[in-house]
Amino acid sequence: MELWYTEEQTENVRLSLKVKEHIFTGQSDFQKVDVFDTHEYGKLMTLDGLVMVTEKDEFIYHDMIVHVAMAVNPNIKRVLVIGGGDGGTVRELMRYPHIQQVEMVEIDKMVCDVAKDYFPTVSNELNNPRVALYYEDGVAYMKGKKNLYDLIIIDSTDPVGPGEGLFTTEFYTDCFNALTDEGILVNQNESPVYEQFAKEAIRANEKLKNIFPIVEVYQAQIPTYPSGYWLFGFASKKYHPVKDLKAEAWQQFNLKTKYYNTQLHLGAFALPSYVKEYIENGIL
Amino acid sequence: MELWYTEEQTENVRLSLKVKEHIFTGQSDFQKVDVFDTHEYGKLMTLDGLVMVTEKDEFIYHDMIVHVAMAVNPNIKRVLVIGGGDGGTVRELMRYPHIQQVEMVEIDKMVCDVAKDYFPTVSNELNNPRVALYYEDGVAYMKGKKNLYDLIIIDSTDPVGPGEGLFTTEFYTDCFNALTDEGILVNQNESPVYEQFAKEAIRANEKLKNIFPIVEVYQAQIPTYPSGYWLFGFASKKYHPVKDLKAEAWQQFNLKTKYYNTQLHLGAFALPSYVKEYIENGIL
Repeated sequence: MELWYTEEQTENVRLSLKVKEHIFTGQSDFQKVDVFDTHEYGKLMTLDGLVMVTEKDEFIYHDMIVHVAMAVNPNIKRVLVIGGGDGGTVRELMRYPHIQQVEMVEIDKMVCDVAKDYFPTVSNELNNPRVALYYEDGVAYMKGKKNLYDLIIIDSTDPVGPGEGLFTTEFYTDCFNALTDEGILVNQNESPVYEQFAKEAIRANEKLKNIFPIVEVYQAQIPTYPSGYWLFGFASKKYHPVKDLKAEAWQQFNLKTKYYNTQLHLGAFALPSYVKEYIENGIL
Repeated sequence: MELWYTEEQTENVRLSLKVKEHIFTGQSDFQKVDVFDTHEYGKLMTLDGLVMVTEKDEFIYHDMIVHVAMAVNPNIKRVLVIGGGDGGTVRELMRYPHIQQVEMVEIDKMVCDVAKDYFPTVSNELNNPRVALYYEDGVAYMKGKKNLYDLIIIDSTDPVGPGEGLFTTEFYTDCFNALTDEGILVNQNESPVYEQFAKEAIRANEKLKNIFPIVEVYQAQIPTYPSGYWLFGFASKKYHPVKDLKAEAWQQFNLKTKYYNTQLHLGAFALPSYVKEYIENGIL
């Protein structure tokens, strides 16, 4: 007998991973949560059947959603994470001793609980005393917040389902107001390869550009996400992600990172011509 | 009814593409050749069941296997392509009017014939008078060649099957001898994500380092290749691929490229830390 997990990345493309065991299945108020033990990628958590995190390649996503901003402003002290229930983003943030507090707002407690039970190497800093964890709706949480955070990380699911409200102009405006004058916003920005998701991501990028003076897109290779090619957004009130990179200051933190390095930081913003054209002109 | 093409990228990972029609199947002296019309990626050619080229994403591979070297030495005039039967590499080379001659050595005539029949936008320069096409074994072809080429491109299949001999020290030594003093060798170097292929690629890289004074690795995101993350090798007698980039000279060619640009060129050599470690220390 063979057991295979299959993600329908689009209606015409599927990625399948051979499974040792289907370890957990649950239905929260928001989504279906499953855990599989796979041969190639170790443990895998899916939300509504889509890959959220695997033990083997989660380091790529979490390195890139955290360290890029930290190397642009190494003085970031107050951070807000929206989503990020598996804990990987918080884990990377906790490697900086000078970060005073991280607020994390995850709508779905089951994601955190499952991460704590089955992904200890990802979730192991969720109980750090510097982390304040709120099981609330991120969109509602942001209302009326002013001048509080140096960094907001939107570690969301796709722009359909529970994550949808995190791709709106209203939400981005609330984030802008909640940031300090030196504030940076980072969000996961989908893959440019499959049109339906790329369109949403490009639209989200345009919304950010209407609010923030500096908006750039950067990239990483994440094998278990659709197409393996993933984008992130970097929006900022003050710092440019390339011109203001503080490579030496970041290197002095002496963090061993498996994906991120300051040379790669620069390369991550050097996009293929077709992606640059999508961002400049939209997708026809 | 639904028809799906599935590639076993490893024994534990599969990529499946929904198929409109299985257009061609043939068995050559070397391998099984198939053509499918897929919904997401247009026409797809497979060799022994593995993705070789798709209409939608072939531009990435062909941009990266050609233009990187051309931007490091814009005076390249004589080129040898080993493999590359679909014609995409030759197509990109023919965009440079100053390239005098390309010799292409493809062991399997059926690949070229199928490309001409079903992939006209890829194969359309194979009949260019500047292209000399030989249906021969690349390994044998290289024997005794001296000081003939400014650029050798090894556009091969994986290091198992017909492509195996193209990953050996002996073959690389023959290539070194066949290059001029300004010579550059570029090869496809597999994905670092799946161990069995990564090991072969890293070994190939070590062999090149024993022969060429300058050897670097660069990367691209190719969605239909295993993991979506692909490496290329750059070996040279004289030019460093980053320090000797002639960005302005290349831009003066005025080529519109959908993936490559000279900023991306620099970023392509900025590898993730785990890949750098593989290259420096091998894979344990």
